[in-house]
Amino acid sequence: MTTTTIQKTQANALRALAMDAVQAANSGHPGAPMGMAEMAVALWGGALRHNPADPQWPDRDRFVLSNGHASMLLYALLHLSGYDLSIEELKAFRQLHSKTPGHPEHGLTPGVETTTGPLGQGLANAVGFALAERLLAEQFNRPGHAVVDHHSYVFLGDGCLMEGISHEACSLAGTLKLGKLIALYDANGISIDGKIEGWFADDTAARFEAYGWQVLGPLDGHDVEAVAQALAHARAHAERPTLIICRTTIGAGSPGRAGTAKAHGEPLGAAEIAATRAVIGWPHGPFEIPEGVRQAWDARERGAALQRDWQRRFAAYRDAHPQLAAEFERRVIRRELPPGFEMLAFKTLAATAQRQEAVATRKASQQLLAALAPQMPELLGGSADLTGSNLTDFPGCGSVMPDDFAGRHLSYGVREFGMAALMNGMALHGGLIPYGGTFLTFSDYSRNAIRMAALMKQQVIHVFTHDSIGLGEDGPTHQPVEHAESLRLIPGLDVWRPGDAAETATAWIAALQQRERPCALLLTRQALPAQPRTPEQVVAIARGGYVLSDRPQPRAVLIASGSELQLAMAAQRLLDEQGLPVRVVSLPSSSLFDRQERAYREAVLGPRAVPRIGVEAGSTRGWGHYGCVAALGLDRFGESAPAGALFELFGFSAAKLVALVRQTLAQEEAACTTTN
Amino acid sequence: MTTTTIQKTQANALRALAMDAVQAANSGHPGAPMGMAEMAVALWGGALRHNPADPQWPDRDRFVLSNGHASMLLYALLHLSGYDLSIEELKAFRQLHSKTPGHPEHGLTPGVETTTGPLGQGLANAVGFALAERLLAEQFNRPGHAVVDHHSYVFLGDGCLMEGISHEACSLAGTLKLGKLIALYDANGISIDGKIEGWFADDTAARFEAYGWQVLGPLDGHDVEAVAQALAHARAHAERPTLIICRTTIGAGSPGRAGTAKAHGEPLGAAEIAATRAVIGWPHGPFEIPEGVRQAWDARERGAALQRDWQRRFAAYRDAHPQLAAEFERRVIRRELPPGFEMLAFKTLAATAQRQEAVATRKASQQLLAALAPQMPELLGGSADLTGSNLTDFPGCGSVMPDDFAGRHLSYGVREFGMAALMNGMALHGGLIPYGGTFLTFSDYSRNAIRMAALMKQQVIHVFTHDSIGLGEDGPTHQPVEHAESLRLIPGLDVWRPGDAAETATAWIAALQQRERPCALLLTRQALPAQPRTPEQVVAIARGGYVLSDRPQPRAVLIASGSELQLAMAAQRLLDEQGLPVRVVSLPSSSLFDRQERAYREAVLGPRAVPRIGVEAGSTRGWGHYGCVAALGLDRFGESAPAGALFELFGFSAAKLVALVRQTLAQEEAACTTTN
Repeated sequence: MTTTTIQKTQANALRALAMDAVQAANSGHPGAPMGMAEMAVALWGGALRHNPADPQWPDRDRFVLSNGHASMLLYALLHLSGYDLSIEELKAFRQLHSKTPGHPEHGLTPGVETTTGPLGQGLANAVGFALAERLLAEQFNRPGHAVVDHHSYVFLGDGCLMEGISHEACSLAGTLKLGKLIALYDANGISIDGKIEGWFADDTAARFEAYGWQVLGPLDGHDVEAVAQALAHARAHAERPTLIICRTTIGAGSPGRAGTAKAHGEPLGAAEIAATRAVIGWPHGPFEIPEGVRQAWDARERGAALQRDWQRRFAAYRDAHPQLAAEFERRVIRRELPPGFEMLAFKTLAATAQRQEAVATRKASQQLLAALAPQMPELLGGSADLTGSNLTDFPGCGSVMPDDFAGRHLSYGVREFGMAALMNGMALHGGLIPYGGTFLTFSDYSRNAIRMAALMKQQVIHVFTHDSIGLGEDGPTHQPVEHAESLRLIPGLDVWRPGDAAETATAWIAALQQRERPCALLLTRQALPAQPRTPEQVVAIARGGYVLSDRPQPRAVLIASGSELQLAMAAQRLLDEQGLPVRVVSLPSSSLFDRQERAYREAVLGPRAVPRIGVEAGSTRGWGHYGCVAALGLDRFGESAPAGALFELFGFSAAKLVALVRQTLAQEEAACTTTN
Repeated sequence: MTTTTIQKTQANALRALAMDAVQAANSGHPGAPMGMAEMAVALWGGALRHNPADPQWPDRDRFVLSNGHASMLLYALLHLSGYDLSIEELKAFRQLHSKTPGHPEHGLTPGVETTTGPLGQGLANAVGFALAERLLAEQFNRPGHAVVDHHSYVFLGDGCLMEGISHEACSLAGTLKLGKLIALYDANGISIDGKIEGWFADDTAARFEAYGWQVLGPLDGHDVEAVAQALAHARAHAERPTLIICRTTIGAGSPGRAGTAKAHGEPLGAAEIAATRAVIGWPHGPFEIPEGVRQAWDARERGAALQRDWQRRFAAYRDAHPQLAAEFERRVIRRELPPGFEMLAFKTLAATAQRQEAVATRKASQQLLAALAPQMPELLGGSADLTGSNLTDFPGCGSVMPDDFAGRHLSYGVREFGMAALMNGMALHGGLIPYGGTFLTFSDYSRNAIRMAALMKQQVIHVFTHDSIGLGEDGPTHQPVEHAESLRLIPGLDVWRPGDAAETATAWIAALQQRERPCALLLTRQALPAQPRTPEQVVAIARGGYVLSDRPQPRAVLIASGSELQLAMAAQRLLDEQGLPVRVVSLPSSSLFDRQERAYREAVLGPRAVPRIGVEAGSTRGWGHYGCVAALGLDRFGESAPAGALFELFGFSAAKLVALVRQTLAQEEAACTTTN
């Protein structure tokens, strides 16, 4: 097997652009792009089915660069293939407001399917892409009409394979037999600290066979034909996902840096670049691409033909299955909610509010799902092995299983991080709104994938139950304390901690309507009483914060969320008896509330002169943000005991809250007197 | 191979205690203890070298229950073996202030080596135990004197093996050939969602062989002799870590629940318990253990003999190597810092403060290590494949490698979570103070292990570099925004974000002196100017917050951390010129500052009437906690560009800070006028 002359030249064009752009930026990673150049030729030079003119074509193959530091490889490929990414953008690699940031960013650069950089997650996203394809194929394809039929390819490196998430994602991909997932492993034996044998001696082929994958190679990753043949074999034998192990040399082509850790993360330097140009036979100046090479790379004509063919097939599908085709267009192309959604949501919320049922908010969440999910086939539920605790399933949802993709609920196994990153992949793919559950404490495990969803503006819904010491006997390892506040810090994530069933329904509806943000719903294990509300108050829940119960000329404002809302209401009643009127503000979603206009926020929180007191069974550090001068919360780890004993132990009672209000008022008065 | 009658009875005693305690608590997990009863007999019934009378015996075997929900198994074993854990404690399982919480908690119950529950982490802790043993053996043992020579055993379940951290920890354990690590896999085929084949179809034996482990079994986990023989084989063939795969039945013994997911997490109920008693032939009442069974389990005599033997051997060692023995006693037994530590630390800090060098705080951290680490052989450094970026190595540290454990710096590979959990295991083992580095953003990956260190009060030092948009071109995936504030929320964790070299040295010294807390040091990539300080101010750094530069009758107080401290100082100078005096407070560690007495804190922050303004290149939500009425920060994701361009883009300049001060003062004045 050989690499032809034009393929060599195509590969060297990638090499040259990578080393030149890194040099121009004086920052970046030349080694991986140079090492993967031939792998890229094998895939992008013919196998990949995509259309540079339409990066949104629904049935395009997905490509993920999981070793995202190799971003210049992807930018070079996008540019040369004919995507809307000019050579000027490549020259502005890693500069402010260019389309060529340090790591590939979805939404910024056409053709970038997912944002990568945090290692291992791109691979997990790719598993999500392949899973979405499989699920949508099941839902939409009909005999003779394969409108969903594409591959998901991923390049990955040693770092991705060291990360634990690679295990979670690939074990599940193997179990589910996602045969249209094809991973190409850039096995260059080098990571930042040097030769990997001192810290990574896995037999990766055996490891992936243990997951039920088809493993091809190791083969020479610089032999385009060998890689291309492996790709063809993988597509022809699609009973299982495929890992193609490509042995490469990092920084290949650079006489002084090839095969060294130094090639990884710094510019080669002018002298070494000149030497590399001589070695690989690339006489052209920086960012210069000869016309013949451009033509060889140009994928626009083939891409347009591929998409036209699909459009013809989709037209035939529309004729044969008009309803399915309309649904496909709604879900996958226009990405709209079902036409009746608003009305259904409104009725469900109204009914919930009217029912006034004391129920755990995790149960209220399941009730909402039971009402809405049957009408929303795009919802794909799941849990990290806590289905019966998270209550993420709903009547008739069915289970996604290795040979059965008709279900709408997936047991992800005990894989919180993998679940979150797979959901990111599915959301990016389009056609599905994924939601998944675990205990709130274990949001720690998936935290960076939640962040990535926020960064990518993807609609992924996290159902985090057992949201406080209310979890009880499982003890401090399972009791979140800092988690609610900590999630609120992630930019672009909406966090909800609803106080009863009506607030839970509102949270879910907001999460479904919010197409460009991930949401985290923090739900109780224990039952919460329903709060009475006027219809206007029911509507106001969606603003994230509102006055739930007011008094004329309140002396203090109690601000509460979730299970502590009932406490604020009880304290208000006790204080009424003592002739001390206070306002109760419910704050189920601080991020939503923070986005309301200033006048509204000030009206809800009241004048600054009236002391504000926060109440939440968790960290109190965030209350200062709302001008609170005191808070009832928990700034230490919990204990193992029945929930009631814990709430008592840590002072979560109406009486304690009343005492805190009185103490705060006394202190404020004293401070005032001193000041005056 | 068979299980003898007494062994059967011993196993049934564990079963009975587990189901009775769960029933009494009306909460807990009977299935796993019942399924692992025979495995426990095989290990605890003879093989395990421990002394119930002295859970601190340094050379005891370590035992970790990674599937921590099986806590009743461990409590039953501790009780029956003769640890200070009464039957009354077992009766109080999962009740407030008992020594038998829902999941095993280190420090609360004698004999519990680590806190488990969050799945997979116990396994990683066990790898840390085995690594600590190997390192200490290298450092202390001499020919004919094996004073460090014990095994680390771990029980784990399917859930642990699904978690990604199992991959990180076990891949590294295999690479390092930690042959005295023996894992027993409770392969019962059931997780909470049901039969695992739908979501976990790994060939686990092949997977672990791919990691370089010795794999024994699958064998019948209810055959005590078979498990015991495998254990003996593992100990006799200790070139590699061993996984013993034990096929078991969850809830074994329960006629109605055995082999079902229902056995996992709820009490069996009175009727099923009665039926189980009949089936297993256990006629005794709840919590009743016949004397013969007690005697069979009692490990006190054997344990005392084992420890006496070790003490004799240690005495001989002390005779032959008095200095080493003294060092062993200091590090491993008394857990004290070296005698000259305080003086050395003081001199190093003084020299650093005097040098007034502009340096990145990551570099200052390395300078501190270069000064202290050679005198502190207990320091064990490392990095998750970013050694050259985190600067965690120091001159002469050497590298820990598969066949060379003389080094003092470990390349953990790209395994942030695994690194953190291994460090927890090493800290728990004793004799080492582990520290490890990665980029601050990737603290997300290791977050729950950091939390566990805090919960367990373990001295683990996290070196998180590249602590803001100052990271520059790598872009938003690598730029922390919410991370500093988010780490500050973890109870019991000390977070430092030093503003120059002197603050960095203080942070390190505090982290080393603080024996019962983990610390996170957030360090810059970019150089920071040294701030001038009086000797009193140098000392005051250790209080976490102090007045760095004051003015008579300040009109505002600027509170800053890390790289933004220089900004506050520059703004102060500009405001001086404008005749507007402000105070600058440096707040390198808010947790330390929060622990100072109230009077000190109030003196530093000044009277409430003087507006406070926070400055930090990250989330602003936490500033309200310090009464700030305004903040210069970053509540959105960063961008990819050179650091200077980013600080400019996001308004981190002295001029912008000056403008914010003036605007804030104007607003406060207006508000005041309105109020009056």
